[in-house]
Amino acid sequence: MKYMVQMTVNPPKDMDPQEWQEILRREKEYGQAFMKNGKFQHIWRIVGEFANVSIFDVESNDELHTILAGFPLFPYMDMNVTALAKHPSALN
Amino acid sequence: MKYMVQMTVNPPKDMDPQEWQEILRREKEYGQAFMKNGKFQHIWRIVGEFANVSIFDVESNDELHTILAGFPLFPYMDMNVTALAKHPSALN
Amino acid sequence: MKYMVQMTVNPPKDMDPQEWQEILRREKEYGQAFMKNGKFQHIWRIVGEFANVSIFDVESNDELHTILAGFPLFPYMDMNVTALAKHPSALN
Amino acid sequence: MKYMVQMTVNPPKDMDPQEWQEILRREKEYGQAFMKNGKFQHIWRIVGEFANVSIFDVESNDELHTILAGFPLFPYMDMNVTALAKHPSALN
Amino acid sequence: MKYMVQMTVNPPKDMDPQEWQEILRREKEYGQAFMKNGKFQHIWRIVGEFANVSIFDVESNDELHTILAGFPLFPYMDMNVTALAKHPSALN
Amino acid sequence: MKYMVQMTVNPPKDMDPQEWQEILRREKEYGQAFMKNGKFQHIWRIVGEFANVSIFDVESNDELHTILAGFPLFPYMDMNVTALAKHPSALN
Amino acid sequence: MKYMVQMTVNPPKDMDPQEWQEILRREKEYGQAFMKNGKFQHIWRIVGEFANVSIFDVESNDELHTILAGFPLFPYMDMNVTALAKHPSALN
Amino acid sequence: MKYMVQMTVNPPKDMDPQEWQEILRREKEYGQAFMKNGKFQHIWRIVGEFANVSIFDVESNDELHTILAGFPLFPYMDMNVTALAKHPSALN
Amino acid sequence: MKYMVQMTVNPPKDMDPQEWQEILRREKEYGQAFMKNGKFQHIWRIVGEFANVSIFDVESNDELHTILAGFPLFPYMDMNVTALAKHPSALN
Amino acid sequence: MKYMVQMTVNPPKDMDPQEWQEILRREKEYGQAFMKNGKFQHIWRIVGEFANVSIFDVESNDELHTILAGFPLFPYMDMNVTALAKHPSALN
Repeated sequence: MKYMVQMTVNPPKDMDPQEWQEILRREKEYGQAFMKNGKFQHIWRIVGEFANVSIFDVESNDELHTILAGFPLFPYMDMNVTALAKHPSALN
Repeated sequence: MKYMVQMTVNPPKDMDPQEWQEILRREKEYGQAFMKNGKFQHIWRIVGEFANVSIFDVESNDELHTILAGFPLFPYMDMNVTALAKHPSALN
Repeated sequence: MKYMVQMTVNPPKDMDPQEWQEILRREKEYGQAFMKNGKFQHIWRIVGEFANVSIFDVESNDELHTILAGFPLFPYMDMNVTALAKHPSALN
Repeated sequence: MKYMVQMTVNPPKDMDPQEWQEILRREKEYGQAFMKNGKFQHIWRIVGEFANVSIFDVESNDELHTILAGFPLFPYMDMNVTALAKHPSALN
Repeated sequence: MKYMVQMTVNPPKDMDPQEWQEILRREKEYGQAFMKNGKFQHIWRIVGEFANVSIFDVESNDELHTILAGFPLFPYMDMNVTALAKHPSALN
Repeated sequence: MKYMVQMTVNPPKDMDPQEWQEILRREKEYGQAFMKNGKFQHIWRIVGEFANVSIFDVESNDELHTILAGFPLFPYMDMNVTALAKHPSALN
Repeated sequence: MKYMVQMTVNPPKDMDPQEWQEILRREKEYGQAFMKNGKFQHIWRIVGEFANVSIFDVESNDELHTILAGFPLFPYMDMNVTALAKHPSALN
Repeated sequence: MKYMVQMTVNPPKDMDPQEWQEILRREKEYGQAFMKNGKFQHIWRIVGEFANVSIFDVESNDELHTILAGFPLFPYMDMNVTALAKHPSALN
Repeated sequence: MKYMVQMTVNPPKDMDPQEWQEILRREKEYGQAFMKNGKFQHIWRIVGEFANVSIFDVESNDELHTILAGFPLFPYMDMNVTALAKHPSALN
Repeated sequence: MKYMVQMTVNPPKDMDPQEWQEILRREKEYGQAFMKNGKFQHIWRIVGEFANVSIFDVESNDELHTILAGFPLFPYMDMNVTALAKHPSALN
């Protein structure tokens, strides 16, 4: 079941740069674990923004929320979720 | 080069239903030609709306505009284009 | 799996009133079939508007879109879908 | 008398984490008291957000405001209230 | 129980002027019936707009919706309802 | 001459609670002075918000601004002013 | 007492061009009568739009609404009124 | 003196296609006259939209409005004008 | 050449009150210098807001930006500039 | 391949002024390097704002993002990117 998630990062103004780098490192590791198991299918950078467009493929709304809320950057991101369905023009 | 295009269809109020069905048939045919040659990579229905989220992979802004303006539904759609770049967390 | 759907009706300006009443009758019949089988759990009128807040409980995004797109009023409604998850404060 | 309340939490940037956990604990306790007496009928998490959709069933606007303003998180939430009425398509 | 209702009139483009005048006459008659029984407490014109700010005092959300949906201009108005509570600074 | 004023309070994040209580006490005293002399005719709490809908009856735009800018909470409020005129459907 | 009024014209799609020219002629005549008596102090075209920024100097909200609602173009304009007060930096 | 003008075309729903083509032909001719004399310096298509971003270099606000209002498509376009000044980082 | 400028002041949260008063004093002095030489023709307070509507009459976009960016409050204001042209209904 | 980028600067509230001046100096140097190699073709100040309209000519979305994310002011700017195509009315 597919969802588009648009994520915008709002970096905290006063965090220690090393702590921030550590959060970014864990963010990447956390995200890639779900890319490898097929649940986080695509991520693209929005040009000119600290933001991305992501596509998830999960079993349920609850599973998606659990994954999203677990991102190390979750407290520093605005997320917007769009539920997607199969399109009649899609191949296969 | 990737782009997200969000398309919303505004069906004309007074078109002959058969003419409309014919436009929809040509729309599907036109879109699938680009799906088959790899330029129109994904299309998903937005749940509850006569709208979709699409991903294109083309050579240039001009090529994308030419493809989009050629859709039989182009005069009946609002389109919103977002330029996408590679994300540093993406695999490979 | 729960979803909130906000629906706003935009009645066509020039439809025959009897045809409109017939669509409304079929709308009610269609909606109540899903209320009876438990998929359409709640519907409330938004005070002062020709609009409602609805709660659906379905198996997937695709099932929800199929139900929503089947409403006789679908061509005359704006729909806005919000995917819902279990809240940690909810009782059981 | 039903109301939909959409609540979005804006956690304070600089609160002591233990103090914040204590507020969240009291929030849950406060909310569940009204769930148990039937006034707070539903709460769902909005997927991907620190936000919820809630349904209240109370005697008056004043009672609703008193309940909402008493939430321990009230100073840290944006709330949006929609007055609801019975829908003619609802069963019973 | 008080509510503010903001109403904006969108006159139909092609109605017979006499029919429109008749609807306006019935609108005034309908509204004044509720002014006389105390349920429609205030109405003010918004300067420069075919719109008003109104204050209602009714028993329930359902009663308010029934009154509002009964206005002869209801199909030609956008309405926005705000539930109001007693303010702690108000004089008795 | 009537005006609707919508006021939303944005409490400062770091003010001493006693100082804030003192400002709220003076706010109430200041407002009630104008309620007593008839210039501040109504105030209602917007349910679920630290906000109100107020109706003023003053001699001029300048008098209204002088009153509004004198509120002790003025630096902590967003205000939105709507000029009102007599409505042709009003009684008397 | 000053007010800024922003007016945007929405020409009707199907009016006879001569009838439209006649409305525009009466609009100019009506406006200039109030310019000559000092109540309509300024009018400027917004560059690129069929819209203007106007400044009125009248005795009351009611007088302003009466003037605005009397414009021959009133049914074809969106108006937005801002109440103005003397600014402390103004000369004299 | 530079201005950015964003223009969006809203084609009329019921115009004769040949009349529309003739307006488009005159639009191009009119625009190119100002491109040739240096007043209309750039025009780019916004990808996916019947819209453009244009840069004008004219002597005054009045001259710009005269040029813009003279476009054959003016009655069918939304225009948004942004006044531009020299940027301190620009070369020369 | 006329421009409307809407200015909204966002006072800094933590500035020394005397320093702020000194900036306000210089703001007034700076503004009045341009009022006296005819470039800053009108300023009105927006009722209920720490904001104004101003009319400037200058030679060019560059001159306007230089004047606006020189205001002592410039770093604490949101400005919105509208280019104005002569209106065909204006007298003279 | 052309893109319009609208950039708005949000200066940090508490940065050392000398550090800020150094960032601005590097910003200018960085930008001018791309102006000199032809990738950053135009920059104009938006009158009254700490913002600009810029035109880039690059090979790909990825190249544009790399350039934009490298601006020393990138963490202090909101950027909005519009993909541009050749317009059929453009000369040559």
